[in-house]
Amino acid sequence: MRTLKLTLAYDGTRFVGWQRQAAGESIQGLLEEALARLEGAPVTVHGAGRTDAGVHALGQVASATVSFTHAGDTIVRALNAQLPAEIRVLDVTEAAPAFHARFSARSKTYRYHIRTGTIGDPFTRAFVWQLPEPLDIAAMRVAAAVVVGTHNFEAFKSAGTDVASTVRTIFRSELRAPEGSAPGADLLGSPTTRTGEGVSGPRQILLYEVTADGFLRHMVRAIVGTLVEIGRGWRAAASMAQLIDGGTRAQAGATAPPHGLFLVGVDSD
Amino acid sequence: MRTLKLTLAYDGTRFVGWQRQAAGESIQGLLEEALARLEGAPVTVHGAGRTDAGVHALGQVASATVSFTHAGDTIVRALNAQLPAEIRVLDVTEAAPAFHARFSARSKTYRYHIRTGTIGDPFTRAFVWQLPEPLDIAAMRVAAAVVVGTHNFEAFKSAGTDVASTVRTIFRSELRAPEGSAPGADLLGSPTTRTGEGVSGPRQILLYEVTADGFLRHMVRAIVGTLVEIGRGWRAAASMAQLIDGGTRAQAGATAPPHGLFLVGVDSD
Repeated sequence: MRTLKLTLAYDGTRFVGWQRQAAGESIQGLLEEALARLEGAPVTVHGAGRTDAGVHALGQVASATVSFTHAGDTIVRALNAQLPAEIRVLDVTEAAPAFHARFSARSKTYRYHIRTGTIGDPFTRAFVWQLPEPLDIAAMRVAAAVVVGTHNFEAFKSAGTDVASTVRTIFRSELRAPEGSAPGADLLGSPTTRTGEGVSGPRQILLYEVTADGFLRHMVRAIVGTLVEIGRGWRAAASMAQLIDGGTRAQAGATAPPHGLFLVGVDSD
Repeated sequence: MRTLKLTLAYDGTRFVGWQRQAAGESIQGLLEEALARLEGAPVTVHGAGRTDAGVHALGQVASATVSFTHAGDTIVRALNAQLPAEIRVLDVTEAAPAFHARFSARSKTYRYHIRTGTIGDPFTRAFVWQLPEPLDIAAMRVAAAVVVGTHNFEAFKSAGTDVASTVRTIFRSELRAPEGSAPGADLLGSPTTRTGEGVSGPRQILLYEVTADGFLRHMVRAIVGTLVEIGRGWRAAASMAQLIDGGTRAQAGATAPPHGLFLVGVDSD
């Protein structure tokens, strides 16, 4: 037997999420089916991040123990030939026998895409949270920095989540507003995607990036929802400090929609 | 009565094309329905470029004669509220009474997206023609330059097209290979979309841009299909010169798929 480390990207739009469910197609389920065809027997796949329905991945990491002996490149080709085009295996390498994508993950990085303006972009609409009004980026940056460190993130945990501890360590939490570039701009040069003033008024592109040793369920989306409420002026930037280490879920902002969220990458042991 | 000039962007993936058809949703049809609701009577819309099924637009121009008196910004909002998110009206302005999007168009610019590499990009797959092998860009550039000028484009016309003349003037025909950027790269920073060597081997991003006083049906896609056969080494760059002014459709390359093609913009009188 050998343990494989798989790196994959996916457009999560039409899936029920990473994890196998009673009904609907999951990324884990499709990957397990594809591997089982190579193995001639069932294969269990573990993912580093259990992305929710509609959430995307640029560099999800998965592990699987198999007995077939194909080289990594051959496995990449064989899996991609079976998987739908929304899911691409980027890389397959040999891992230590003890490697487990979830338990070996030291940190994970997520990115959330926000775009403001009254006219949405048809080409990136599946990957960006579109908001009509400009946001106060300076206030959002102050609040984004507050969550860095080891804190109790109880206020950013989805209701009904049963975990041993709600303490996590955030290594990096940053809001970027790329100048002169925009979702889809390089791809499409679309009038709808240019930054700044255009035929359809002012617009902003905001990328929120966060790296932590782990995330509670819906934690990134709850942080983003809170940051956006700060950016809208609905709550003060200082309220973020009151939410960590003592706030309740009801006190934090609404959960941001899944389609703006990407699992960017995973650092493993 | 007043004449409106409308500028719009659309993801053409799920439509039967710009033009109304007996069955299926067309961009023209949906726009006419939305305008008819404002007018309280049927409205006819003319488009500068009749994009085919699956072809996209960043700056399609349309004209319509209406009697309602709303301001341009109000019309933009009212149309976007009715249209599906794949179609966005970017701008509505007052035009001269004689303005007709198709007959007033002096030139149109199209862009075609090509990406090479063995692993496709899940996020831009609806907007890019993905080819497995690297292409000979230098040879393609030589051939792309040959079509500039006034020529008989009979060889690049779709079979069964009934037009008075197959002579068109191409003002610009260029193949760009953006350095360090890539479809989706700025949007997603995806491992699958980085230019150059990566986990999934070498890849290229190629943008073919062409401006002309008019295009025959499938003309851009037939030129791109021929350029790609040159890039693959299946035919010589010099064969392009033999195709214009005398070649037949059978001698030119296969028609490139629609989903890589964008109507970028229209210059009107």
